[in-house]
Amino acid sequence: MHPILSALLSVGFGLLSSAAVAKEFVLVDAEAGKRETEWSITSRDLGIAAGPAFSVHSRMLDGGKQEGVQVIDVDNGRLSFTVVPTRGMNIERVTSGDVTLGWNSPVKEIVNPAFITLDSRAGLGWLDGFNEWLVRCGYEWAGHPGMDDGKLLTLHGRVGNTPASKVVVVVDDAAPRRIHIRGRVDEKVFKFADYEAWTEVSTEPGSESLRISDTLTNQSDYDREYQVLYHGNFGPPLLEAGSEFVAPVKQVTPFNDDAAKGLDTWTTYLGPTKNFGEQVYNVIPFVDANGSTTVMLRNKAADRGIRLTYGVAALPYFTLWKNTDTLREGYVTGLEPGTGFAYPRVIERTFGRVPKLAAGKSQSFDLDYTILTDRESVAKVARDIAAIQAGRATQMRTTPEVKE
Amino acid sequence: MHPILSALLSVGFGLLSSAAVAKEFVLVDAEAGKRETEWSITSRDLGIAAGPAFSVHSRMLDGGKQEGVQVIDVDNGRLSFTVVPTRGMNIERVTSGDVTLGWNSPVKEIVNPAFITLDSRAGLGWLDGFNEWLVRCGYEWAGHPGMDDGKLLTLHGRVGNTPASKVVVVVDDAAPRRIHIRGRVDEKVFKFADYEAWTEVSTEPGSESLRISDTLTNQSDYDREYQVLYHGNFGPPLLEAGSEFVAPVKQVTPFNDDAAKGLDTWTTYLGPTKNFGEQVYNVIPFVDANGSTTVMLRNKAADRGIRLTYGVAALPYFTLWKNTDTLREGYVTGLEPGTGFAYPRVIERTFGRVPKLAAGKSQSFDLDYTILTDRESVAKVARDIAAIQAGRATQMRTTPEVKE
Amino acid sequence: MHPILSALLSVGFGLLSSAAVAKEFVLVDAEAGKRETEWSITSRDLGIAAGPAFSVHSRMLDGGKQEGVQVIDVDNGRLSFTVVPTRGMNIERVTSGDVTLGWNSPVKEIVNPAFITLDSRAGLGWLDGFNEWLVRCGYEWAGHPGMDDGKLLTLHGRVGNTPASKVVVVVDDAAPRRIHIRGRVDEKVFKFADYEAWTEVSTEPGSESLRISDTLTNQSDYDREYQVLYHGNFGPPLLEAGSEFVAPVKQVTPFNDDAAKGLDTWTTYLGPTKNFGEQVYNVIPFVDANGSTTVMLRNKAADRGIRLTYGVAALPYFTLWKNTDTLREGYVTGLEPGTGFAYPRVIERTFGRVPKLAAGKSQSFDLDYTILTDRESVAKVARDIAAIQAGRATQMRTTPEVKE
Repeated sequence: MHPILSALLSVGFGLLSSAAVAKEFVLVDAEAGKRETEWSITSRDLGIAAGPAFSVHSRMLDGGKQEGVQVIDVDNGRLSFTVVPTRGMNIERVTSGDVTLGWNSPVKEIVNPAFITLDSRAGLGWLDGFNEWLVRCGYEWAGHPGMDDGKLLTLHGRVGNTPASKVVVVVDDAAPRRIHIRGRVDEKVFKFADYEAWTEVSTEPGSESLRISDTLTNQSDYDREYQVLYHGNFGPPLLEAGSEFVAPVKQVTPFNDDAAKGLDTWTTYLGPTKNFGEQVYNVIPFVDANGSTTVMLRNKAADRGIRLTYGVAALPYFTLWKNTDTLREGYVTGLEPGTGFAYPRVIERTFGRVPKLAAGKSQSFDLDYTILTDRESVAKVARDIAAIQAGRATQMRTTPEVKE
Repeated sequence: MHPILSALLSVGFGLLSSAAVAKEFVLVDAEAGKRETEWSITSRDLGIAAGPAFSVHSRMLDGGKQEGVQVIDVDNGRLSFTVVPTRGMNIERVTSGDVTLGWNSPVKEIVNPAFITLDSRAGLGWLDGFNEWLVRCGYEWAGHPGMDDGKLLTLHGRVGNTPASKVVVVVDDAAPRRIHIRGRVDEKVFKFADYEAWTEVSTEPGSESLRISDTLTNQSDYDREYQVLYHGNFGPPLLEAGSEFVAPVKQVTPFNDDAAKGLDTWTTYLGPTKNFGEQVYNVIPFVDANGSTTVMLRNKAADRGIRLTYGVAALPYFTLWKNTDTLREGYVTGLEPGTGFAYPRVIERTFGRVPKLAAGKSQSFDLDYTILTDRESVAKVARDIAAIQAGRATQMRTTPEVKE
Repeated sequence: MHPILSALLSVGFGLLSSAAVAKEFVLVDAEAGKRETEWSITSRDLGIAAGPAFSVHSRMLDGGKQEGVQVIDVDNGRLSFTVVPTRGMNIERVTSGDVTLGWNSPVKEIVNPAFITLDSRAGLGWLDGFNEWLVRCGYEWAGHPGMDDGKLLTLHGRVGNTPASKVVVVVDDAAPRRIHIRGRVDEKVFKFADYEAWTEVSTEPGSESLRISDTLTNQSDYDREYQVLYHGNFGPPLLEAGSEFVAPVKQVTPFNDDAAKGLDTWTTYLGPTKNFGEQVYNVIPFVDANGSTTVMLRNKAADRGIRLTYGVAALPYFTLWKNTDTLREGYVTGLEPGTGFAYPRVIERTFGRVPKLAAGKSQSFDLDYTILTDRESVAKVARDIAAIQAGRATQMRTTPEVKE
């Protein structure tokens, strides 16, 4: 792009702020019919000298099934991550020092949903694009495919394969100048759905934390069911033989017979294991006084980990997906707070785990992810989790709720 | 775009006329592999001083599911409308003074068909993009989804989600210098279909009328079935509590049991009504001496309305879709001339309402829409319709033809 | 494009060679997120004076369902052809003198897979884009649609509708300076497939031959089934009344009852014939001492033809598809070497015709196509084929293997 044109564009077509120093930028605006195809901003551009230097860069991908895919790279000076507006504001990968959040899927490209048919393979089309660190599942439905009222509900819903209709980058005026990447993902279908999800991932410059602050609004005049899963996926280096999942567990139930066989070791991990398949555990966590809970995945040496603290009222159920297959196949574990478990909606409904969102109402979802980079911080989180457990017993249910 | 480049492009890559004043422009040409991405022409550009100033402007949308969508805005000096080549030359919206033709669907974006799977939700994927004033349904099939010969025929066919293969803007040389937006939409599938539909919407500068002049040609060597519905959709201001549908009705039959309950008031409308759902009536109109009929939707005060006059030989059946749900859900009524009613093709066939188009033959469809903006013109159309009815009785059939 | 920018781009963003004369160019690279949208190279650009002048030109199409489709036109000085990266490196058309390889499908556009739903029409969505001279079928499956393990396997698999992830043009340093168009097509689905197919079509400047040299690699840690068909399709001028298919045939079996009726004349062709439908024959060829076989399609006068020589170990079965319908419907015959026949995978498996590719292993496929332009070369190929047959009898099986 011509440098002058580039400079002009770099302030964003939708500069929302009239202040001398720009701080809110619209990168995608479907109402206006526009999208930035190449855009960046740095702390220096903003005249911010104090604190860690940071940058946000939006660009387009091409090649293979990536045609027309937009990605936003954020570097907070210590931690960097990539948000994908074209795929529902999914977060592809997070890196900080020697820790990466994410995993190696056989799917390497960031696939434009135009090339995916979610209905294919009996509703498993979602797997054609699955390679993110964090993919939201929802909103009309989530979970495994299944027929409901004569219609095929496809794996994990549509939001992760829906291009964002509005994307805004905000940098706070005041220190610590938190950077916010906001994207509105619409799930609107005549007669069926009128959901607007304002997603947000934010980070403080220099920190090792990400915060998800999403708000789902039912714009319909009718109360409507919804389902949400935050499908966060972790491979090496946090996942390895001897890694451990640590959580304050009120109740755990194997998802199916395969998982039942592994119940004794459900919180620990094998190394990459051919023919392991997957084991899934349905968890109900204990909650702290603020209505939050904390879970952790830590490596074998207990000197690296990820802490996830989130509000439980909105996400009362938690799925632990252990997919310790070989590295090439996808050696990965999913930590998945949700409105329910991962059975098809028609089954979840019978267990009372499909909430409704009243007409015009909103539901927020708040999740804080912090990378732990030393033994002490891992130990500290373990103590926090133990404090939530508070010595209470875990109910181990040995039989799946649902027969296969 | 650079102004010089823009100026160069503004004459169109496919300028077909060699006259000093350009009057025919090719905006899309799949055979040549080309499309204009930004193009406009005005009456001034064409050196036309007499009559109302007019303009035609083609542009690309982006953001959300609009990526790659082309729209053409036409302003005839009094009435403006938007044609969507990417969605089968659908007409998104028409405005003139205080009258808008169109409605507010929960679906706000003009969705690129690349993001729609018509087969999804048991064949209801069409609803993911449904928000137009006028969407053509066809051509291999139209109507409700259903299995036919082991294949799922999806709601209202494919034409409304098929990008136009050729788009031409024509401005007549002589007064009144009618503006024509022509688009060829192909429905070509090896072993199944070889339809070419030359669609046209045209308008006279300064008028309050639109004319649809479509020609469907069966390029196959085999005679083939076809189905067409012109799905024109009206919300406020023409639709309100007390609005009335006026038509010369030979026979009316409720589509289903729900509609049967509303038969007594089938020509009048409620205001936005929660849980109304929809009621559909199958209408056979009387015809005038020219083989045309006229129907009208008018507001409560009878000072605003839309007149639709169309050729009945090609479109012998008429569906009235009353969907007076809440404003947010889509408060809308559909006036839908068709080759048949909206039952699945397999059912329509049993009633003899699936015509065939012989090999190499064409069928034309002509519809004139005029916005009525005062009490007198509404009254005039009512008299015209009464003249077609000519005092003949309406056969009211109380039982649906088809059991649910 | 600005001429200077164009000149800069013309060397390719991924120039791999450091030699003074460029000879390897990357046109698509999904790993880098890039694609050339307009690119060309000629023998003159490369400073090659000896031998026939040649050129390679990559460009983007638009209009209709062609939006975003990339094509590469190759002219070797005598023969020209078009490769379509967006559609799995299919070869659209080959022309040399008065011979064209290809056919006239009702489908005229080169359709972007984003507009195709392979699952539609009970798995026949592939027909929405079918018009190539050569389309690869595979790799998880090929053949007719059918359910397998509860999932619909769609007609002829996905590779022909998968955009290439990497495309490289190579011109050999030394005479005869063969031109190679290489494209990597990935079929990667979490839990199901991790195939990488490096496809290559190459030609010598001035020759009338094309060589396909593909390598399919199973990057998975699991052995996996695969299916491949090379679906090469020929209309006029090679196909006409009196054309003949010549091959060293060990065994031939009609695909179904319709084909059984035509068994007596299975190697000869009718002219365009309304209501012919199609007849398919399952062929096992004899093999020469090098493990290859040769088949030919020749015109009535026996002075034009196509010779196909290919390795049989990788492609032991051969399907002859006779679709001598009318010219408009698609007057075409398919010569289709494959890993099996065209029955659904679930059926092919029962006959032991679904091979497995071991974890990490590769399988190559080599096919040489030569256009024959005089009576003597046609006669020569006929003698070569007779030599492979070596007087051995053909087993004519009159009953299809599979009941309809």
